[in-house]
Amino acid sequence: MTRKIITGYSNPTVKFVRSLREKKHRRRERKFLAEGLRLLTDAREGGRLPEILLMAQGREGHPLLDELEADVARSGGEVIELPLDILAKVTGKENPQAVAGVFAEWDTSIRLIDRNTAPIWLVAHAMRDPGNLGTMLRTADAVGAGGLILIDDCVDPFSVEAVRASMGAIFTERLAQARWEDFLGWLREGEGQLVAASLREAVPYRGAPYSAPCFVMVGNESRGLPEHYEMACDLRVTMPMKGRADSLNAAVAGAVLAYEVLATLDER
Amino acid sequence: MTRKIITGYSNPTVKFVRSLREKKHRRRERKFLAEGLRLLTDAREGGRLPEILLMAQGREGHPLLDELEADVARSGGEVIELPLDILAKVTGKENPQAVAGVFAEWDTSIRLIDRNTAPIWLVAHAMRDPGNLGTMLRTADAVGAGGLILIDDCVDPFSVEAVRASMGAIFTERLAQARWEDFLGWLREGEGQLVAASLREAVPYRGAPYSAPCFVMVGNESRGLPEHYEMACDLRVTMPMKGRADSLNAAVAGAVLAYEVLATLDER
Repeated sequence: MTRKIITGYSNPTVKFVRSLREKKHRRRERKFLAEGLRLLTDAREGGRLPEILLMAQGREGHPLLDELEADVARSGGEVIELPLDILAKVTGKENPQAVAGVFAEWDTSIRLIDRNTAPIWLVAHAMRDPGNLGTMLRTADAVGAGGLILIDDCVDPFSVEAVRASMGAIFTERLAQARWEDFLGWLREGEGQLVAASLREAVPYRGAPYSAPCFVMVGNESRGLPEHYEMACDLRVTMPMKGRADSLNAAVAGAVLAYEVLATLDER
Repeated sequence: MTRKIITGYSNPTVKFVRSLREKKHRRRERKFLAEGLRLLTDAREGGRLPEILLMAQGREGHPLLDELEADVARSGGEVIELPLDILAKVTGKENPQAVAGVFAEWDTSIRLIDRNTAPIWLVAHAMRDPGNLGTMLRTADAVGAGGLILIDDCVDPFSVEAVRASMGAIFTERLAQARWEDFLGWLREGEGQLVAASLREAVPYRGAPYSAPCFVMVGNESRGLPEHYEMACDLRVTMPMKGRADSLNAAVAGAVLAYEVLATLDER
């Protein structure tokens, strides 16, 4: 097992990894960055190994890190040791984790989704906040959803912030990206109930007739869903809004709905 | 009505307002910054006017802004016009809003809370993420909670990020800050059911015997609640976790619980 040791900021690999914090470089390279032993272990358990494993000098040892390093070496990946302050520059975090990895992005075509593998799927339209996107991946994991389908222009799910907020769920949940027309075309080729919170011809979200596979859709953080998206839904539900503001945080609304769907399906 | 016009970055008022982005300055001055006409209008409707109103030159006019300006002037506040790029420097946002305000912080003592004004209260322990804190304020608004009680070392609720994420709810929800012992002492002086998600001697969250006033507590994002906080609860509930990860985002978990409490109380 060979480790490469890097000591300078100007090393090409350091520059390359650092460039992955920018979307244009991720798009070109189709690779992304994830930090921390927990995330990297989730990835490994989800069947994904980093192509490059970066480890800080002076880190504490850990059996899981040893196993990860061995797996990366076996799979032909690169293992690099570097000073913690350089790793911090690479990941852009003030309190850097002692390990990070560069992963190849995977195919997120909607055609790869097998809807019958789970009773619930989450769908986000034009979600702009990476924290919200990561949170929805985490919620998908918690409710036993199959994964998250991103509609139209969402923030990049492979951004450092979204990956971080997903707490590893990016590696274990199915992820798809599609334009609305392509999603709807795919959805109507099989069974599937599309549900969204709405004020148009909607029923109360408690006790609504949810059915599996149920696709729970939330809209953009500031504009919500376009009207014709709402009208294409099989079920529109209202959630109580007792206050002055007109809406919940999008990821929160999705989670409350998804837990209601889960409870309804489990009761049957 | 007089407006002061500022044209330079080095103006003392600009420096002062800008300094409020840092916690130490907010602590000393007991003032904070909120941006955007929507937030400032929420504040005004919530009975709070800025001490300083900052308006970008070349902004679009708006009747609500005219009313706000008149109110600020009437109340003895300062009205300042300045170039948009200076306002952007002040608020630190890439796409700055055309208006911002400096507000006096208010007393967040737990003793000022009247628990009987609402059936639900949200409680956050050691919440570190300003986005989560703002999201919980928004959720409090949506479920008709009385407000949010912050326990122990939470992120500053008056930080620009938390204020922004609250979408105005910072001005309309009651906000209290207390150490755990002080909160618990206050709670036990009257009626109030303390509820948290837990794995210790807990019942399913669906159909649990919630009662008003119900205090829904969530723990720190990475460590959760200390065991003795959980054991001090009147009711511990479990939420389904179908996935690999061990927990939901804290603000999401709080919202799912709060909506369940709301549904239970409304059914009675």
